Amino acid sequence: MAKKVLPPQTLLYPVPVVLVSCGELEGKKDIVTLAWVGVVNSEPPMVGIGVRPSRYSHELISKTREFVVNLPRADQVKAVEVCGSTSGRTSDKFATTGLTAVPGAKVRAPLIAECPVNLECRVQQIVNLPTHDLFLAEIVAVHVAEEVLDGHGRIDPDKARPLAYCNGQYWQSAVLPA
Amino acid sequence: MAKKVLPPQTLLYPVPVVLVSCGELEGKKDIVTLAWVGVVNSEPPMVGIGVRPSRYSHELISKTREFVVNLPRADQVKAVEVCGSTSGRTSDKFATTGLTAVPGAKVRAPLIAECPVNLECRVQQIVNLPTHDLFLAEIVAVHVAEEVLDGHGRIDPDKARPLAYCNGQYWQSAVLPA
Repeated sequence: MAKKVLPPQTLLYPVPVVLVSCGELEGKKDIVTLAWVGVVNSEPPMVGIGVRPSRYSHELISKTREFVVNLPRADQVKAVEVCGSTSGRTSDKFATTGLTAVPGAKVRAPLIAECPVNLECRVQQIVNLPTHDLFLAEIVAVHVAEEVLDGHGRIDPDKARPLAYCNGQYWQSAVLPA
Repeated sequence: MAKKVLPPQTLLYPVPVVLVSCGELEGKKDIVTLAWVGVVNSEPPMVGIGVRPSRYSHELISKTREFVVNLPRADQVKAVEVCGSTSGRTSDKFATTGLTAVPGAKVRAPLIAECPVNLECRVQQIVNLPTHDLFLAEIVAVHVAEEVLDGHGRIDPDKARPLAYCNGQYWQSAVLPA
């Protein structure tokens, strides 16, 4: 397999594209699109999200130490692009996207009703990296739309239509045939 | 959308399934399958990998502070399963899988020749979490097989056949139609 050496770059794939909601349901709130997201620990379940300090969501999450990871469907890619390219300092992204903020079970940060999966997260630790701060957070509650599950209670990608990102393109997922 | 609340769990998707190679080409070396992997920083490009302290790869990476993230193709899922379910303490996984260790450009850890993408990584920081240690590492060199690129130099998922993981199932990827 002939290979070429490329300059160092973030060529991990597929990485999830998520909408992170933060702030407070009845107060200042925001949505930011992130792909620098991953699981970091099993018990308790924990995720890490990388957020640039310049983002409004960084300010809100630093203050409340809570956020929600909302997993969008492929048909929500327009909202994903709006939330990734505009600032919550100057526009209310729930209003501009039409997405609905609903209360969580364990955190004050709003969930996005239209996303089939919502992970409520509480920040445990913040690691400062050169361009991003990495928020390491425990998943304290999980909400799943029954309509995206298969007969075994697993996520059915044909129904959940997961979005991933690579090299400036969006990818979709399907179950690998056995 | 009717939702149910599930116990806290690692329901982020899609997450990449990768083969992490470590140790030294001419000495002790190992391959471990991981899904708790993500990008954590943009400049310099950095990844985070979560590894249980009991794993042999944890021992090798802690010692050398280097590893390589190799991205397998869907047809390499058997090797992925072997490297995820056996220990490098008792078997040489390059031998049991038939995968080939080749030298890197910047690190002493071996690359896996058969994987279309290899990210050479140097550990910058280790964050101890309850069940996993999170190795935060700079990507110092990237190797890509020319045969998995599209006409624009981007990864073509039909050629690279990326593997992802969710709920005990393997997923594959395709470009989202515009």
